[in-house]
Amino acid sequence: MQSPSSGTPSRPNSMSRRGFTAVTVASAAALATVTAGPAGATPTVAEDAIQVPEAGATLAQRCLDVARALLLRGPDGHDLVPSYRQVLVGGGLPRSAGAPKKVLVVGAGPAGLVAAMLLRRAGHTVTLLEANGNRAGGRIKTFRTGGHERAAQPFADPRQYAEAGAMRIPQSHPLVMALIDHLGVPRQKFRLLDEHADGTPAQQTWIRVNGLRVRRSDYVRDPRKVNRSFGLPRHLWDIPSATILSNALDPVRDEFSTRGADGRRTPKPAGETIAGWARVIERFGDYSMRRFLSEAAKLDDATIDLVGCLEDITSRLPLSFLHCFLDAALISPQTTFWELRGGTAALPDALLKEVGRCIRFDRRVTRIEYWDPDRPHSETRHVSATGPRVWVDTVSEGRAGAPVREQFTADLALITVPFSGLRHIQVAPQMSYGKRRAVTELHYDSATKVVLEFSRRWWEFTETDWRRELDTIAPGLYDAYRTGRALDDGSLLGRHGSVTGERLSQSQRTYYAAYRSATRDQPAAVASLGGGSVTDNPNRFTFNPSHAVPGSPGGVVLASYTWADDAMRWDAFDDDARYPHALAGLQDIYGQRIEVFYTGAGRTQSWARDPYAYGEASVLLPGQHTELFHHIATPEGPLHFAGDHTSLKPAWIEGAVESAVRAALEIHAAP
Amino acid sequence: MQSPSSGTPSRPNSMSRRGFTAVTVASAAALATVTAGPAGATPTVAEDAIQVPEAGATLAQRCLDVARALLLRGPDGHDLVPSYRQVLVGGGLPRSAGAPKKVLVVGAGPAGLVAAMLLRRAGHTVTLLEANGNRAGGRIKTFRTGGHERAAQPFADPRQYAEAGAMRIPQSHPLVMALIDHLGVPRQKFRLLDEHADGTPAQQTWIRVNGLRVRRSDYVRDPRKVNRSFGLPRHLWDIPSATILSNALDPVRDEFSTRGADGRRTPKPAGETIAGWARVIERFGDYSMRRFLSEAAKLDDATIDLVGCLEDITSRLPLSFLHCFLDAALISPQTTFWELRGGTAALPDALLKEVGRCIRFDRRVTRIEYWDPDRPHSETRHVSATGPRVWVDTVSEGRAGAPVREQFTADLALITVPFSGLRHIQVAPQMSYGKRRAVTELHYDSATKVVLEFSRRWWEFTETDWRRELDTIAPGLYDAYRTGRALDDGSLLGRHGSVTGERLSQSQRTYYAAYRSATRDQPAAVASLGGGSVTDNPNRFTFNPSHAVPGSPGGVVLASYTWADDAMRWDAFDDDARYPHALAGLQDIYGQRIEVFYTGAGRTQSWARDPYAYGEASVLLPGQHTELFHHIATPEGPLHFAGDHTSLKPAWIEGAVESAVRAALEIHAAP
Repeated sequence: MQSPSSGTPSRPNSMSRRGFTAVTVASAAALATVTAGPAGATPTVAEDAIQVPEAGATLAQRCLDVARALLLRGPDGHDLVPSYRQVLVGGGLPRSAGAPKKVLVVGAGPAGLVAAMLLRRAGHTVTLLEANGNRAGGRIKTFRTGGHERAAQPFADPRQYAEAGAMRIPQSHPLVMALIDHLGVPRQKFRLLDEHADGTPAQQTWIRVNGLRVRRSDYVRDPRKVNRSFGLPRHLWDIPSATILSNALDPVRDEFSTRGADGRRTPKPAGETIAGWARVIERFGDYSMRRFLSEAAKLDDATIDLVGCLEDITSRLPLSFLHCFLDAALISPQTTFWELRGGTAALPDALLKEVGRCIRFDRRVTRIEYWDPDRPHSETRHVSATGPRVWVDTVSEGRAGAPVREQFTADLALITVPFSGLRHIQVAPQMSYGKRRAVTELHYDSATKVVLEFSRRWWEFTETDWRRELDTIAPGLYDAYRTGRALDDGSLLGRHGSVTGERLSQSQRTYYAAYRSATRDQPAAVASLGGGSVTDNPNRFTFNPSHAVPGSPGGVVLASYTWADDAMRWDAFDDDARYPHALAGLQDIYGQRIEVFYTGAGRTQSWARDPYAYGEASVLLPGQHTELFHHIATPEGPLHFAGDHTSLKPAWIEGAVESAVRAALEIHAAP
Repeated sequence: MQSPSSGTPSRPNSMSRRGFTAVTVASAAALATVTAGPAGATPTVAEDAIQVPEAGATLAQRCLDVARALLLRGPDGHDLVPSYRQVLVGGGLPRSAGAPKKVLVVGAGPAGLVAAMLLRRAGHTVTLLEANGNRAGGRIKTFRTGGHERAAQPFADPRQYAEAGAMRIPQSHPLVMALIDHLGVPRQKFRLLDEHADGTPAQQTWIRVNGLRVRRSDYVRDPRKVNRSFGLPRHLWDIPSATILSNALDPVRDEFSTRGADGRRTPKPAGETIAGWARVIERFGDYSMRRFLSEAAKLDDATIDLVGCLEDITSRLPLSFLHCFLDAALISPQTTFWELRGGTAALPDALLKEVGRCIRFDRRVTRIEYWDPDRPHSETRHVSATGPRVWVDTVSEGRAGAPVREQFTADLALITVPFSGLRHIQVAPQMSYGKRRAVTELHYDSATKVVLEFSRRWWEFTETDWRRELDTIAPGLYDAYRTGRALDDGSLLGRHGSVTGERLSQSQRTYYAAYRSATRDQPAAVASLGGGSVTDNPNRFTFNPSHAVPGSPGGVVLASYTWADDAMRWDAFDDDARYPHALAGLQDIYGQRIEVFYTGAGRTQSWARDPYAYGEASVLLPGQHTELFHHIATPEGPLHFAGDHTSLKPAWIEGAVESAVRAALEIHAAP
């Protein structure tokens, strides 16, 4: 990625450039020098031969490379999106390449699936290895009934589903949008902020912090009460947190775009945009988000706390400024978001049809040997210059009996597993210093979601709806909730007639009573679709469904979406206690009465605990963009690398797709 | 802690000072002002009354407070250690206090145990609540057979034990040393670096990085080969990493100590020491460790990588400089470390005898109500001015049937649970802004240990021992290992006659073969006791036992000790695969042959996943010492706070004991 191809996508030059070149030298201790033998012969390697990393490109050059990679520009500055889109949904890989190759693709997330699809169509023999015994898609995962993974029914209503991972796709991501439409996967609007049924803004969801509860629309109009509760200085009392943050970032944005009278930004001409981004990366590459807000934007601790809490960056404050800034800068605030009908897993469903039978589930790669004539390789036993050049060992999950091993060989391999996972794969010979550093140190963040099912979409209710539904349970119950007199011992959980109750154990009721919310006041109805609330309670961010699931009167709420430290605290919880506790956090925002529709069905996804993901996504630490990024996608002999972490859009499907096209071009053109 | 008592330990003044004072004011939206009623009356609280954090002490004052807290000095600069020691192991709490009180202590880690012991001895009625169903000690935890927790046999040899948590106690920690000796817990030397049997330094363990393997003693004598493998600049080729780090820290140390001709440091006079530390905290409080090394010490990326890798700070680079620096500065490099015979759990064993029957196991606090006349409290139902002032709800683990709830009341409570855990406890009324901020944002780090049992102490073997033992398995096996020709399919696991093999499943053998080490060369024997190796493979840091367990020919090796991102990657592993994989990492260091003594028994402790610890310890982020620390220990009405996180020695037992004495004094003197 870091040095994408010039005009002809068939000959990316990223293979020819390495920041650090492995140089075999004599160590100080043993002066016996060693020269690698000619390709095809086994070189003799002295015990003490060591690889010394060579100083790579200058900082300025690396910053320019990162800028080009994030803008998907070739070395001459031209836009690579059209040619990538052509490969992806147009004519496929160029016809000009050499003989078909045998390719192993490791990991069936979106990057692996797309690359396998493209390489197969171009005539290569592809085997796609997936560690999961029954599921493709990586960090695209839908809790649902059925699907390609033949999943068991997760919710009381078999039609309901919810996202464990990727849940929204910005219109401004061109490749994934093109792919979805090309594959004919139906999409619908994802409402980032809540709306009325007719699509007009509602912003009736809550900001629930410091004991206050203020509607989002009211906060934008009059932020003073909330801002003062954080102790903001007087000159910022009346400025909403999003504006404070945006103002802080504006001088940085001015480096590569200009702001019109209407506040909208226009990119500068391509050359200036790239140079501007390179300046930003060089100037702020070593900054954490906190350092930027404090030292560059001159915000005080109280204001940083406010912005962190409301704009979801508290847990990202010690991480790279560039990471937060890229997300904010590459997705326009006016962008439309989309979701896939039936769940984001509809995309892997469609891609699986394209890759056909080349996928092997339940094959976790544990060991890779590869042939590189430039590297000492006394430890490899299964590869050679005359082939195969790649050999991998795998082990099954062993969930249906004892684990089994199976080995695969190929001419080339595409490794799409997160570097957090690659860290635990044995690779021989050892890869370049820069790659090993990146594999070891690339930071992966945690992310945890807790979803809860309700038998009615109470977030769409008016007060009239609430009164009608609650009084069917017991006359006067509506008023009892309004005045904080309803029982809170768990006996009202799932009491509405629409809840069958089979998923509500006595144990959940006990935990509910023990963890019940500390507040009993009942705020007014939300009466909107989509969007969600922000709170300083452990739930932090919540999302309501943007649409009804056809045929179902209920819905699944994302009751808690947390990152980093916030996520870690949910991860330590026992599963039994997690759902009642998440419900209590939701009640703290919306009032106690939502409990009557709780079906007792919840699901949690902790990406940090996922045995194949090892984290949500790469979220770089200060300095890693300039120190590590240029090593991430560089091939190591016959090993190529793809996945969202090899792009500058980590955690986004777009980044995975981008990287898949780039890597498929590399492999297709490889000698 | 942050404002410890003056000379008379009976009247600490930390209760009287709050950085942020809760001020009830009228909100902008609703001008109805509210005045809290007099103590004893229920104040009327308007809906919109909000608490606004007041600007607290100046930065300079806060830095001075942190400096005093870390040196355990009173406001006048005098040393509090003697009076704390007197309370702890001398006469106990002062006799001058008022009537006996009913006190709830939450959490039976070392802080809770020590505080409960002191308060009981002083005549207070104490109930000590512990969430674990069968174990006290918190992050002191020994994998062992028996003990107060009546633990099942973790290893093949029932005499063997290993530490899941705290494993070494520096001589320079005065309070915990006094406590151990006072309680008569036998201790023995912990060998931080490996030694010969006669106690002379060996340093025969390995530095295993970038494909090199160099003995520690050789590295200190000639660091060039290792240093060059990281790409160090020429002027640092011949300086060991510890010296590079120490040189980087020296100018900071000069602020509060002077360096003699022999390199040893002497503290400046008390006043200057405190002022010097305050300057360090003010100047570097916002620095991450990486920023310090890069911007203050002017080290390049390659050198930071070397120091990070060898000195165990890679995973701490984005975290507070002060945290790393405090650990390095408060424990002298010449200090002796101790371990407790039978395991560190011998300390909670002894403390449990002291607290007697006041402990209630299996009672996890989920909700706290407290009475504070200065705070709105319309949501509390169980507390009042006339008593009780504290009420807590608890829930059991429910491992022996359905979970049960139980409620407790008291005059005062001491909360010792980590803030990561307190985050998930409902507290009403809400605590001060500063406390809530600290509870939410205080960073907790991950730490994961993987221990493996061997039937012989192979690290003490000479080559002669190796040949003798291996050739009892099969003639020529010693040489087969030496030349990399021994089978590596798992069939040699536990093949020595001393291994019964009952813990070695076929599944472990399969995983072993799949994850086996990529290198097959056999380094020479270590032949030393204690210490351990450092590697850039996923195991990172290993420790060998400092002593034989009486009567047992085997030993348990700490095969991997990791923090932060390194730990997170082990945590995502399936348990079945973790031990063979950890063994492979150990073989990468010591050679394949150690496998013949592997008993198949391993244990893992992930503190991030522990449902009561929620992390290893508080490791602060840049800026948190000055922004959050002064809020951590401040009482909230009748709630007091202790635990290592309330001290400036987080993760150390000393910090927990310090805090317990401080809090016991507070509670004893409270009105």
